[in-house]
Parts: sequence; structure tokens; C-alpha cells
Amino acid sequence: MLTAISDPDDLRIEAYRAVRERDLLGRQHRFIAEGEVVLRVLLRQQSRFEVESLLLGEGRVEGLSVALDVLPSEVPVYVANRQVMDAIVGFPIHRGILAVARRPMLPPINVLLANLPETALVVGMVGLANHDNVGGIFRNAAAFGADAILLDQETCDPLYRKAIRVSVGGALVVPFTRTSSADALVRALEEASFEVIALSPSGAETLSRVQPSRRMALLLGAEGPGLPAELLARTRAVSIPMSGGFDSLNVATTSGIALHHLTQANKG
Amino acid sequence: MLTAISDPDDLRIEAYRAVRERDLLGRQHRFIAEGEVVLRVLLRQQSRFEVESLLLGEGRVEGLSVALDVLPSEVPVYVANRQVMDAIVGFPIHRGILAVARRPMLPPINVLLANLPETALVVGMVGLANHDNVGGIFRNAAAFGADAILLDQETCDPLYRKAIRVSVGGALVVPFTRTSSADALVRALEEASFEVIALSPSGAETLSRVQPSRRMALLLGAEGPGLPAELLARTRAVSIPMSGGFDSLNVATTSGIALHHLTQANKG
Repeated sequence: MLTAISDPDDLRIEAYRAVRERDLLGRQHRFIAEGEVVLRVLLRQQSRFEVESLLLGEGRVEGLSVALDVLPSEVPVYVANRQVMDAIVGFPIHRGILAVARRPMLPPINVLLANLPETALVVGMVGLANHDNVGGIFRNAAAFGADAILLDQETCDPLYRKAIRVSVGGALVVPFTRTSSADALVRALEEASFEVIALSPSGAETLSRVQPSRRMALLLGAEGPGLPAELLARTRAVSIPMSGGFDSLNVATTSGIALHHLTQANKG
Repeated sequence: MLTAISDPDDLRIEAYRAVRERDLLGRQHRFIAEGEVVLRVLLRQQSRFEVESLLLGEGRVEGLSVALDVLPSEVPVYVANRQVMDAIVGFPIHRGILAVARRPMLPPINVLLANLPETALVVGMVGLANHDNVGGIFRNAAAFGADAILLDQETCDPLYRKAIRVSVGGALVVPFTRTSSADALVRALEEASFEVIALSPSGAETLSRVQPSRRMALLLGAEGPGLPAELLARTRAVSIPMSGGFDSLNVATTSGIALHHLTQANKG
């Protein structure tokens, strides 16, 4: 349902007004997806995320027409010229593509884990407050087919606009939920018979020696502080050996290295 | 040599004026390093990079005093309060630490390769125009002890301020040079008896099956276009298998995965 918008104050596009300011406030039950790649992933994931509306630049409608065929006919697709769109959003929106969708309810962690297949690989994030890193980890988890992602209470929102963009849509692909604490996260994994591998520069074992097991969880902490000592003590702590004097890997890159090893180790 | 600066128009701090505008113009024979981590790497690398001066916020001098002991006494260390420093630089410089250093002459590629040890691992970048990716690859190359990095003519400057920051100083650690073309880059590697492994989603062989050899070069292309077909045809094209429907890895993450495999494959 294409609807032309010519007045930036049109009440129908209220959800797109002042995108950056709203990013900071949060949108409660909604999130914003931006750009063509992310929109295409969102349209494939409508069973999980209900799309409420789209706002497209005039020049983008034709190229998306086939992709938009999968959108229910009652979902409004607002169309505006560049000038009106920038005025609504509050900054130049070069990609010319925005969507508003509903956030789903997050399942309790034990329910999420109980529904995973017998052979499963999950990623746990502890204290990751950087949207680039969280987005990058979702991208890698999607690329290597991880079954789920678990977030502790301090890890930032994967459905924040920038995190979705950095994930190249991976934040809409890999099922996730949030726990009340890192401790509750690890406990739930143990109860569901997951072997918990904690990546840490202090790990005595090296990643390349780890043999994949049936149910594995990869635990990642923030780059500076790393994982809390009490978590390292009750999990299998694994390190990635690095060159002397430059012991520094980005946490998203680390997740890619570990997921590649755990999914490919026995295929060499 | 500490020198207090109270006037933002002081001619002695000319090199720090309007940092972002100068970033765009380029600094010819100089580059800017920012932040404590990068400064500490720069101070360790003074045999390669001649430090011309420092500009520090008042609050940063004491914490750096030991690190600054390695600076030749004739190198000026300008000190300014936050307000003066921001006025000089043109934006809030939260880290309060800047340095100006000389760019070294880049060696011809055949000279760089001839000086490498018998067993060596190098990274080649083709058409990488994103500073985050170039910085991220230098970070990974430093972490896994790569011996050198080769850039084609289209790859962006690793000594651009942001690239150095993203590299966490890795751009000051791994020796690099630039070639006139991707073709010249690959030819020089072949002449120096390097096995050239080109990472590409179209590669018939999978990374996890690659056994490290004595002299290896890892070739990386930009995320969208990838490596040119003529380069893939004359090199060993290797892919990283991904989950169906989400075939997308960041190129810096890809470099980390490949460098980890090639340096750790026989240590499992």
C-alpha cells in the first residue's frame, strides 16, 4: 500500500520523526531497520518481527518492488522525496530506506535453550556495551549458523538501529534472549548440558586444541575488563595465542575466529 | 621538553590545527597519532617513525611521564588545558593526547620482501577503501605476528588517524608498503616464492583444509566486489564456508580467521 508523503509533519510518519533522538530514548515495543540489505532480511523474517510500516525515498520504490511483494497489503509503505524524508528523520538518510517493526517478547532463557536441537552452538555475551561489537558478533553468529545468542543485563540492545546495520541483518536472524545476570546465563547453560567455553587471554588452553562437542556455548566479555573471574573459574577458559607484545583482538573478530574453529575444526 | 600553550593561535602548534580538515587534505610527510594506547606504541617504534611533537591535555602529563622518558629531549611536548586544546584541534579531543610524526619512505616491494625471514606470512590488500577495515586488518596482522602488509594503489592510507586508532597501533607495528597495482603486488610475491592464498567466497578449497607453508601471502579484497577474477585465476582461491542464506563476513574479521588458522593450524 503505497502512500505519498509530502508534509514532513504528517502524523502518519510519526514513528520516523527525529530518528537519532528516539534512538537514545528507546522505542519500547518497536525498532527501526535501515538500508536495503537489512530490509531484505527483515522481510524474510516477518514470522518473528511484525513490520508496521516502511518509509522509502522516491527513487527506491522501483528497485524494491519484488521484495515488497511479501509484505501484507495492509502494511503502509510511505514514500517521500529526499528533502521531505531528511526533514522527517532529522539527518540525511542516504540509503533512503527505513522500516518500523515490532519487537517480539523475549523468551525465558530455559525455554529458548530447551527448544534448541540436540547438537547446538550458542554465543553468550557478558558486559558488551558497544553496538559495533554486538552487531559484529550477531553477523558472525549468523554467518556460522549459531543457534542462539544469550545476553547478560549489561550487554547493549541488538535491535538498536546501528547494531542491526553493523550485523548486516544478523540481529534479525539469530534468535536471542536476555538474562538477569551473567551468573543466571551460565547456570541456564549448565542446566541445559552445554559445555561453556569462555574466551579469555588468561585461558590456559588454546582455542586451536578445543575439539567441538555436541552442545557448546561460547562466552565473550568486553575488550578491556574481560570476563569476571568467578565466571572463568567455573567454565573452560580458552585463549587465542598472539604475537609477543601485541596481545589485542577485537571481540567481534574473536567471535569470528572461535566460531570458525568450532564449526570447521573437524572438516580440515 | 614541556611547553605550556595558552593561545590557540600559537604558531608552534600549527600542525594540530583543524585536525579533521587536514585529515581530508592529507599531511604529506606527516601523520597524526591519537590516544594513549597508540602513543605508547608510537614511542616504542621511534626507530621507524620520527616523533616531531606531542600535544597533551594538562591532565594527561603525569600519567604519561614514564612513557615520555623515551622521547628525545629536543622533541617538544606542548601542554594545554581542555578548552585551548579543543580550540586548536577543532573538536572535543576527549583522549587529550595527540602526536605528530614523520611518515617514513615506503620501500620498494621487492626490497621489503627480500628482507623478510625464510619463513614468512604477509597480507595483501586489494581495493580496500574503508579505514575501519584497513585498521582492523593491521590490528589482526600485529596480533598474529604477520611479517608485512602490501597495499595496492586503491587501498586507503593505514597512517590516516582513524585507521591507526582502529588498529590499536598495529599500523605502526607491521611493516608495509604500497605497489602500483594489484598485479604488481601478486607478481612480486610470486617472484619472492610466496604461495598466494586469495580469500574469496568463490574459492573451491576451504580455509580449514589449507596447510600452512613456508612463505604464505593472504590476499584480501573489498567486501562487495571481492578480488578481481584475473587475480583469483592465478592464485590459490580459498573460501570460508558459511551458513546457508547468510554468506557475509566483514573483511577484517575474515583476516583474523585466516591468520589464526594459518598460524595455529598445526598446533591443534
